[in-house]
Amino acid sequence: MTKKISKLRPRAITPKGFRDYFGAEVVRRDAMLRQVADIYFRYGFEPLESSAIETVDALGKFLPDTDQPNAGIFCWHENNDWLALRYDLTAPLARVYAQYQNHLPTPYRRYSMGPVWRNEKPGIGRYRQFYQCDADTVGSASMASDAEICAMLADALEGVGIPKGEYQVKLNNRKILNGVLACAGLSEQAQRDHVLRTIDKFDKVGVDGVMQLLTSGRLDESGAYIEGVGLRQSQAEAIIAFLTSGECNPDQILDELRTIIGTSEVGQEGIDELKKITELLDIQGYGPDQIRIDTTVVRGLGYYTGPVYEAELTFDITDERGRQRQFGSVAGGGRYDNLVQRFTGQRIPATGVSLGVDRLLTALDIKSRRNSDIDGPVLVTVMDRERMQDYQKMAVELRNNGVRAEVYLGNPKSFGNQLKYADRRNAPVAIIEGADEKLRGIIQIKDLVLGKEIAKTATVGEWRQRPAQFEVPRNELVNSVKKILEQGI
Amino acid sequence: MTKKISKLRPRAITPKGFRDYFGAEVVRRDAMLRQVADIYFRYGFEPLESSAIETVDALGKFLPDTDQPNAGIFCWHENNDWLALRYDLTAPLARVYAQYQNHLPTPYRRYSMGPVWRNEKPGIGRYRQFYQCDADTVGSASMASDAEICAMLADALEGVGIPKGEYQVKLNNRKILNGVLACAGLSEQAQRDHVLRTIDKFDKVGVDGVMQLLTSGRLDESGAYIEGVGLRQSQAEAIIAFLTSGECNPDQILDELRTIIGTSEVGQEGIDELKKITELLDIQGYGPDQIRIDTTVVRGLGYYTGPVYEAELTFDITDERGRQRQFGSVAGGGRYDNLVQRFTGQRIPATGVSLGVDRLLTALDIKSRRNSDIDGPVLVTVMDRERMQDYQKMAVELRNNGVRAEVYLGNPKSFGNQLKYADRRNAPVAIIEGADEKLRGIIQIKDLVLGKEIAKTATVGEWRQRPAQFEVPRNELVNSVKKILEQGI
Repeated sequence: MTKKISKLRPRAITPKGFRDYFGAEVVRRDAMLRQVADIYFRYGFEPLESSAIETVDALGKFLPDTDQPNAGIFCWHENNDWLALRYDLTAPLARVYAQYQNHLPTPYRRYSMGPVWRNEKPGIGRYRQFYQCDADTVGSASMASDAEICAMLADALEGVGIPKGEYQVKLNNRKILNGVLACAGLSEQAQRDHVLRTIDKFDKVGVDGVMQLLTSGRLDESGAYIEGVGLRQSQAEAIIAFLTSGECNPDQILDELRTIIGTSEVGQEGIDELKKITELLDIQGYGPDQIRIDTTVVRGLGYYTGPVYEAELTFDITDERGRQRQFGSVAGGGRYDNLVQRFTGQRIPATGVSLGVDRLLTALDIKSRRNSDIDGPVLVTVMDRERMQDYQKMAVELRNNGVRAEVYLGNPKSFGNQLKYADRRNAPVAIIEGADEKLRGIIQIKDLVLGKEIAKTATVGEWRQRPAQFEVPRNELVNSVKKILEQGI
Repeated sequence: MTKKISKLRPRAITPKGFRDYFGAEVVRRDAMLRQVADIYFRYGFEPLESSAIETVDALGKFLPDTDQPNAGIFCWHENNDWLALRYDLTAPLARVYAQYQNHLPTPYRRYSMGPVWRNEKPGIGRYRQFYQCDADTVGSASMASDAEICAMLADALEGVGIPKGEYQVKLNNRKILNGVLACAGLSEQAQRDHVLRTIDKFDKVGVDGVMQLLTSGRLDESGAYIEGVGLRQSQAEAIIAFLTSGECNPDQILDELRTIIGTSEVGQEGIDELKKITELLDIQGYGPDQIRIDTTVVRGLGYYTGPVYEAELTFDITDERGRQRQFGSVAGGGRYDNLVQRFTGQRIPATGVSLGVDRLLTALDIKSRRNSDIDGPVLVTVMDRERMQDYQKMAVELRNNGVRAEVYLGNPKSFGNQLKYADRRNAPVAIIEGADEKLRGIIQIKDLVLGKEIAKTATVGEWRQRPAQFEVPRNELVNSVKKILEQGI
């Protein structure tokens, strides 16, 4: 019988691939996104919060008349429409721009931050709902737009706490890549794509690896044989020359590229565009230590049409296998021209960047090694449940002086439970006022952070100068607590 | 043929009942929610951001085996689960608490802010996606929790800009209502609910109206006849006596209520609870001008089990029909005990409040009559497209000094288009530097806000002291712009 009842109870569980975010996780993400938003706003970008639900038709890419109507997205049939949750922030931007074209300023520069949903197989650290943070300029063909996005990206990274020298915005142009491929005599699209995907591996496999992959093939670390693109040695060398164009100043790189590209018109156009961008960045004071040309940047195929950029964090981390490596990419973007066209038939130039919110949060975690435990509230314990007013008054005093504080609201019978609660909340300080203290006009202040430290160390001696619990007159509550919070450990 | 192609194009449109939020709308809501979050956080509440998607099973209330599986919610079948978008923030809280009970502190005090989705008929100002902002304490039976929520609600209203005297948190207790109904000899649930729904109309129809509705019925303003509950005169009088318990100090009201309630045990219990709450609020310095007992507050039926509260804004507005009336309710909540029980079988006490985000934003709009036009960026116009660097440098200087600024990135050929763009962006200032200005080392500063004012007034005379466009040396760019922004109109 009991079993039958319990069977009727729903399971308290998030659907597969979804999760909840608690306390410090929410605070930290909000703080980071706010810092980014402030910078984007100061550049004159407008926030846009589009509807989370779109028609499948407007989202494009995924259409309900394929075998699997919901491949990649969450969608359902509603009256006569197929509705779906947005899977990114760019498709909704295209829809918004097409819908409000006559009301929006041109160019339309906007940023968007919010969850997107993917109906994909979840994995470790891969969820089916996650945050994106995009900034795009729609309706401007000017290279100044691309330069602006790169500058803004550098500012955003510094703004959230990645100092100069620990990140790098890398800049390339798909037209140059196309020029190089043309020079090498590659005209077939499938072969070009294969070459581009190979170039994209440059960071991992280096010059020799790419050389092998472009020609006959390569034996992988794992022992697997990766088939080559099948280029002739001379073709592959031209591409390698391009990929290894020096790390010197932009003008030299651009000159070198001009020689490599030769007569390819599209290639020269790409170099001109890159030149304009680097000139604009230079005058704004962005040096190659912040933003520099990197000919190995490729980005997604069949999407970008001109400048492409990628932000990498360059500080070292230890990976799962215990090896030192750079943290890697946290943002990417570029120029794309055919997103709005789907709706209006007009080719509208656009360029934009997307920040990897979770990646960047992880990076900030590693960098700061911050102890998120310090965020807990001061806990006013309840020694006498008839004097709730006295305790509430203390919390009010603390809060009015800017200190996060609360009164214990559970059953106060067990003081042990109150301290256990304080521990779970990461409370830095507990206040105690029993009948005896009340009579004497004092309160006990328990420094919980120090208490934990003392508990960790073998000898108490070194802490003798600073006891983890002490008494002060009641009217010194606020000052004493503030002093503890300020001094930390 | 053209027609055929255009037919293939998707329509750029939000699904019915959904909308996008642009610029100032997003900024203002974010700012308000941040102010509220800061206050909730200072009280020791933790943020929680639960998954937007839940199993239909976990959401409860709506079950897929009814005739219409998606009545009220957006849901779809996914592998073996029915998934749905959350329709509020309380159902997910119950699921989270049941799922993480052993990891969360008890009591668990959390706030949540975010969109919820309702599959309901949209109407004017009624969308199928909207924001909620909730704070709840789960696992505390103490009246101090309810007092805390009321205090926090008052603080939040003042925090976002509703001054003391222009809002009122009204407090009641369902147990007292139940006591009154018991005293009046009403035992049948349907009849009790009918009486409660009638009491809820007190604000609208007053003493006489409620008297009529409780007894024989009432002729509506519109001429429609509303059937009465059918109580005897003496029963109705007891209820009216309760509803009109004086507006004097809490102790007097409570004494008066004790007399009315008589021997009803549940009623007396309700009065005791109310007394504890008002005592706690009194000691924390909240007067009846902020939070007071109001016996006419009912709130949702079949949900609340003890204290209920509601926040009303008391300043006058002019409604659609041109009549003066109070702005009305912007928040409500109370104590509920059976939400977590669905999952665990345990009865867990809980109390909480929900802010009406859109209502409160509307109220702030009315109160401040704020001109959101002032948010636009300073626009650096492009007079010579070869000197993009010069213009970018100006924008950088402005931004580095905290001024929101941008360079025009559209086609600069038509200066008129640039000014039209400035107008759409609500730019307060435009900067102009043509070849002549460059040569003379000066820039033109166009005060666009003042320009608009001058255009509105008939005589230019009164503005003679302050021209809408003037020139300054190039190196005075930042100071001159800041001066204009500070002085306003």
